[in-house]
Amino acid sequence: MHASNSSSEEQKFQVRKLQISDKNKGFIELLRQLTVCDSVSDKDFEDRFRELSALGDDHIIFVIEDESSGKIIATGSIFIEKKFLRNCGKVGHIEDVVVDSNARGLKLGKKIIAFLTEHAHLMGCYKVILDCSLENKAFYEKCGFKQKEIQMVKYFI
Amino acid sequence: MHASNSSSEEQKFQVRKLQISDKNKGFIELLRQLTVCDSVSDKDFEDRFRELSALGDDHIIFVIEDESSGKIIATGSIFIEKKFLRNCGKVGHIEDVVVDSNARGLKLGKKIIAFLTEHAHLMGCYKVILDCSLENKAFYEKCGFKQKEIQMVKYFI
Repeated sequence: MHASNSSSEEQKFQVRKLQISDKNKGFIELLRQLTVCDSVSDKDFEDRFRELSALGDDHIIFVIEDESSGKIIATGSIFIEKKFLRNCGKVGHIEDVVVDSNARGLKLGKKIIAFLTEHAHLMGCYKVILDCSLENKAFYEKCGFKQKEIQMVKYFI
Repeated sequence: MHASNSSSEEQKFQVRKLQISDKNKGFIELLRQLTVCDSVSDKDFEDRFRELSALGDDHIIFVIEDESSGKIIATGSIFIEKKFLRNCGKVGHIEDVVVDSNARGLKLGKKIIAFLTEHAHLMGCYKVILDCSLENKAFYEKCGFKQKEIQMVKYFI
């Protein structure tokens, strides 16, 4: 019984790449739980989607769709930075990780981070990094990350 | 006299984009002052240079060459991340900023950061970010940055 439940849970919360149709499945509304994000027109969404798709495996956005509601309830993105240092090494940058406030406690965040991290590994990165608030530090430590530096920012608007 | 000196200083320490010939001007040796970087073959250098050049203004490496020695004595890079949030906003990521240990005190770091920041601004980014050690915090504050988050890292090697 337990195994069957667990298997149906897994089917319900599969990680996949962002699709252009996810705009109508609450993807932008989900991002809004993270930061400011006004409505995005279909054209702007498609243009950005195609720009990112053109980068192939160097920029991936993962999502989890709740099959029962048809809504995107978790997402996270990663892009691969190519350097000269570290013998022309590569670094994975994780950005924009968010889990729907109604879907917390299902370990979806951990699942997304595992996929993002694995992607960086498969791409041959020597490390994967992200910036987070102090209050999210414990979560990322559970995902195998360690605090290293501090993030500095300059806003233009 | 002062104006003339200042002008020749400016000519001596101009910021420009990385060129493929900079490999023979100590570019890799300069990066080695920042982190691990073994020798890079001419082919690996050219391949990476072309990969990054293909990204156009979305990935720029600035350098300062000391005209008298013909050596690269400062560098910094920036890449432009394209997002869906913030109304399909863009973020500039500054990476790999280093000034030759023999060229400190000439404000070359500040000059490189000013060029990188201006590039992010011109590219329409809503912010520019970077990760640094606590000991470099004061330098970036002088460049107009503020501490915001913490950086978490996971190494694969």
